Amino acid sequence: MSLKLTILGCHSATPRVNANPTSQYLEIKNHNFLIDCGEGTQVQLRKYGVKFSKIKHVFISHLHGDHFFGLVGLISTFRLLNRETELHIYGPKGIKEIITLQLKLSNSWTNYPLLFHELTATHSELIFEDSKVEVHTIPLDHRVYTNGFLFKEKIGERRLNMKVISKYKEIEICDYQNLKNGKDFKLKNGSTIENSELTLNPTTPKSYAFCSDTSYFPEIVPHIKNVNCLYHETTFLKDKENLAITTKHATAEQAAQIAKQANVQQLIIGHYSGRYKNIDAFKTEAQEIFENTYLAETGKVFEIN
Amino acid sequence: MSLKLTILGCHSATPRVNANPTSQYLEIKNHNFLIDCGEGTQVQLRKYGVKFSKIKHVFISHLHGDHFFGLVGLISTFRLLNRETELHIYGPKGIKEIITLQLKLSNSWTNYPLLFHELTATHSELIFEDSKVEVHTIPLDHRVYTNGFLFKEKIGERRLNMKVISKYKEIEICDYQNLKNGKDFKLKNGSTIENSELTLNPTTPKSYAFCSDTSYFPEIVPHIKNVNCLYHETTFLKDKENLAITTKHATAEQAAQIAKQANVQQLIIGHYSGRYKNIDAFKTEAQEIFENTYLAETGKVFEIN
Repeated sequence: MSLKLTILGCHSATPRVNANPTSQYLEIKNHNFLIDCGEGTQVQLRKYGVKFSKIKHVFISHLHGDHFFGLVGLISTFRLLNRETELHIYGPKGIKEIITLQLKLSNSWTNYPLLFHELTATHSELIFEDSKVEVHTIPLDHRVYTNGFLFKEKIGERRLNMKVISKYKEIEICDYQNLKNGKDFKLKNGSTIENSELTLNPTTPKSYAFCSDTSYFPEIVPHIKNVNCLYHETTFLKDKENLAITTKHATAEQAAQIAKQANVQQLIIGHYSGRYKNIDAFKTEAQEIFENTYLAETGKVFEIN
Repeated sequence: MSLKLTILGCHSATPRVNANPTSQYLEIKNHNFLIDCGEGTQVQLRKYGVKFSKIKHVFISHLHGDHFFGLVGLISTFRLLNRETELHIYGPKGIKEIITLQLKLSNSWTNYPLLFHELTATHSELIFEDSKVEVHTIPLDHRVYTNGFLFKEKIGERRLNMKVISKYKEIEICDYQNLKNGKDFKLKNGSTIENSELTLNPTTPKSYAFCSDTSYFPEIVPHIKNVNCLYHETTFLKDKENLAITTKHATAEQAAQIAKQANVQQLIIGHYSGRYKNIDAFKTEAQEIFENTYLAETGKVFEIN
């Protein structure tokens, strides 16, 4: 199965009638992750048919409003919908105080467990792991403490080669898990069939790197090397490179350079400044450096294979 | 000139695709007031063509999310638009801490003066006054500390009766202000023309009372007696009166009873629960008690004469 990424918002700075601030919904293995949560994200989730109860983990890159002002509203709505499942929030130190202060003053504590994982490290760290998925931070260079996030599938089980298995009557369904785990099979006559004969290699694990607001920062390249898909912000075109430097943002050209250096398969760009009426120029500029570039657009779904 | 009220949002609890939480924009004399500011209000302001720089005073009734989660985003957007004019926020104690904490952690202090007027009184108080307008709080009964707001024009100047004035060559433009102030006019021949001959009574001052979330609370009646227009929440119909009591909200029937007791000219109802798919029933229920009832609807403009 592929990773599925839904763009809920991809514009910078201020929400406008047809320009939602950053938020993405990532379906990876058995997980449904929300990445950033600008104002209006809960409405976008409804608009694109995301079932609220599926979201158990929210990753916030940094505490600029266009990346998290929608979070407190989402948390409150979950409460009003009588959510019981726990919700994990990963974000910069301070996010817990911001949310809990508002819940306290509105006398609206959640009746579901709300768990904060505050981030302070300036090196990449593993912040979530289970049997199928890992999430690592990608330290970025912005005006405030900011992390990107690397979502990686783990190597899965070996896949049953049913064409071969079906030839052996002795192999039963109850043996399948051992085969998936890489064990050889012993026949009653004492001989052994090697696992490699009965199974195929696991599917290649997929990975997605989300790099929100950052200046051109080649230090991230080792963290995102060879990922299947990189989202990298491009607030500006190269005509505004000086402004990108001052505000610690990137140009489309710079995002493409990072994608090229990291040898990623696919680049998605977004976080466009409201100065640009037509976003096609972002794609044109990036593709001069890195051909396999796509524009983030609100509501667009990317299947990452 | 009439008061002009634009409904930016009129639904309760959670923002949905076609249901914006509470916010209203009131034009009264030379002022442009924003009343409550649910999530997404800044987008609604853009949608309905309100010039951001006109808003200098924001009144927040209480600290439930559907009435103020859009405020921090609006304040931040004003900053990004290089606002210089001061902005006054009137709301319950705690609102300053909520906003300043977020500005601090995002390293985004406003470059315009941001002035908080925190409210704690449980009796009605005058919170804004200039030569033309007064704003008083209306203490309400809700689950958290909540105020409604009474916006009142002051009695204006006397109006020049040009038909009469034009008969007297001696009365010049430079005399008009004295006449508006009620002074008589002395002719060169020593005789006096009484002011009442030269001017008309001032227009009757108009008033608007905004009563957001509250239970049925007749204690407000003296504060809103004879207002031109009352907005009173009606989260529920009378079929859910028990739920209204538990959650400290009002039914359409109760809002209409308040309007009748206060002898207001016009009632606007809103803050509908998402349970009701068709809001017409709110109007029907209210009109059984108080005929001159109107439904708040997003984008609707009321001219209050």
